[in-house]
Amino acid sequence: MNETRRAVLAALDDGPVTGPALAERLEVSRTAVWKHVEALRDAGFVVDSVADGYVLAGVPEYGAAAVEFGLDAPFDVEYHDALPSTNDRARELAADGASDVVVLADRQTGGKGRRGREWSSPAGGVWTSLLLRPDVPPARAPLLTLAAAVAVTDAAREAGVDAEIKWPNDVVVSDERDSSGRGGAKLAGVLTEMEGEASRVSWLAVGVGVNVNLDPGELDGEATSVRAEVGDVPRRVFVQRLLERFAALRDDPDDILTAWRERAATIGQRVRVETADGDVVGDAVDVTEHGALVVDTADGAQVVHAGDCQHLRSA
Amino acid sequence: MNETRRAVLAALDDGPVTGPALAERLEVSRTAVWKHVEALRDAGFVVDSVADGYVLAGVPEYGAAAVEFGLDAPFDVEYHDALPSTNDRARELAADGASDVVVLADRQTGGKGRRGREWSSPAGGVWTSLLLRPDVPPARAPLLTLAAAVAVTDAAREAGVDAEIKWPNDVVVSDERDSSGRGGAKLAGVLTEMEGEASRVSWLAVGVGVNVNLDPGELDGEATSVRAEVGDVPRRVFVQRLLERFAALRDDPDDILTAWRERAATIGQRVRVETADGDVVGDAVDVTEHGALVVDTADGAQVVHAGDCQHLRSA
Repeated sequence: MNETRRAVLAALDDGPVTGPALAERLEVSRTAVWKHVEALRDAGFVVDSVADGYVLAGVPEYGAAAVEFGLDAPFDVEYHDALPSTNDRARELAADGASDVVVLADRQTGGKGRRGREWSSPAGGVWTSLLLRPDVPPARAPLLTLAAAVAVTDAAREAGVDAEIKWPNDVVVSDERDSSGRGGAKLAGVLTEMEGEASRVSWLAVGVGVNVNLDPGELDGEATSVRAEVGDVPRRVFVQRLLERFAALRDDPDDILTAWRERAATIGQRVRVETADGDVVGDAVDVTEHGALVVDTADGAQVVHAGDCQHLRSA
Repeated sequence: MNETRRAVLAALDDGPVTGPALAERLEVSRTAVWKHVEALRDAGFVVDSVADGYVLAGVPEYGAAAVEFGLDAPFDVEYHDALPSTNDRARELAADGASDVVVLADRQTGGKGRRGREWSSPAGGVWTSLLLRPDVPPARAPLLTLAAAVAVTDAAREAGVDAEIKWPNDVVVSDERDSSGRGGAKLAGVLTEMEGEASRVSWLAVGVGVNVNLDPGELDGEATSVRAEVGDVPRRVFVQRLLERFAALRDDPDDILTAWRERAATIGQRVRVETADGDVVGDAVDVTEHGALVVDTADGAQVVHAGDCQHLRSA
């Protein structure tokens, strides 16, 4: 959304305001004001014409303009009804030199998880990728993955879901709260992809998939959704809270690890992590700034960078 | 080079051997043997026909078959007379799923250094990229850059050049040895590029540029070449030693840091490092496994991940 349209929208939100008054305030023609109002209506905003001018009477459920409206985070938003994968679209934007762009899709036709796994992404979920260009070495990239997991958890909790983080990149519904057998079910995942030099990231796409307004039947066996847990929520607000929380953590990287630990279901659990070098079994005691899990095993502490993690019942 | 051609070449090297004997030994037709011999001649190998068969009488100066012949490292070699950039070609090969391929070019038309800087790459130098797919997190990528710097240094030393490493990724000619004013002049550089998930490298291209058989006039002001230092050397052998040393270090990652420190001109020097956050001035005391320089400054130790490094004269 360009600056003038943003200003028109803000004025309508504070309205009513007449077209001539708005034209004068924004130093554009009355025709320009009218065109912006029509464009906002096309994007789904409800703009009423009342006796003393225009006034905003409704905001669209979802979309680029909807998410940008009232967003307190420095991102441009790009929306698609359908994309193969928001991370792949972010990669295209990166090749064009873009940065600080949020890609949103109503559904993904080829959504992916870690290690190229499929990720079911029907219409109604939040499928989004943040394209960033932080001036950091690749070793700092995992910290942004951790930040995204914290941001998703907080957005889900604000929506009323008792969410927590499961290492490495999942957000699940808390075990103890749920007696339905869905306990620990997966609500969201984070997949960060990157390109760069060995000492410096060129770009980074933090992909986030959240099962929001989806039926249990649309999901994989072990997954749950916001709808299944607490009913539907406005995706616009969900994404805004997620982006705002992420932006705040990005600006305060020293807070990320603490925030992650506080929300982590994995820390303190007995775990089995399947790695390329075999299984690691022990007590998960911490996470490092490189996103690695520290596991106390019978053979001493092991630092595991990647793998699939199972929470085991204590003996 | 396919397995049969490799076997034909080895037999010719041990020759003389007759066509029929070779056909029988390799279980191929006599026509096939003849075709392989002709292909080797096309690639620049000199194959003499003597009374008791064929014998290898000469190896081409450079090229894929030349470098693969006698190479004790598990890489396929791809050669081009000219490429825009060997790293870009490695990236293309990565997209096709390749791994453990060495890309060689006689010259690069768009060679690049760190941070997108130009890198002069005329015919006669060694311009090469190693495409690898190590199963490691991105934080381990810098270690392979350090290994490449060690491998280049050792290949240069074997060629008679008193080379050492300058942080982050340069190989230079030792200061004290040289009274001509070329002291510390740049001989080679390493540029590692990568793509992957935050917790796992997908592919990694270790680009190495060495000024080998080049005139000083072909080089940038502060650069030198093997030719300028000790005269021309066979590039085939230079690349083979480089690849073999790199492969050995890759298999023994615990040796890399020690080997790097032993060859580093920077450690123990007073340095000024220009970083994105300003200059860091102090004594360079160590390098980390993430390739960062540890600098003792007036305000304590600082760990610098990226920047341009100047060696200062002590006060």
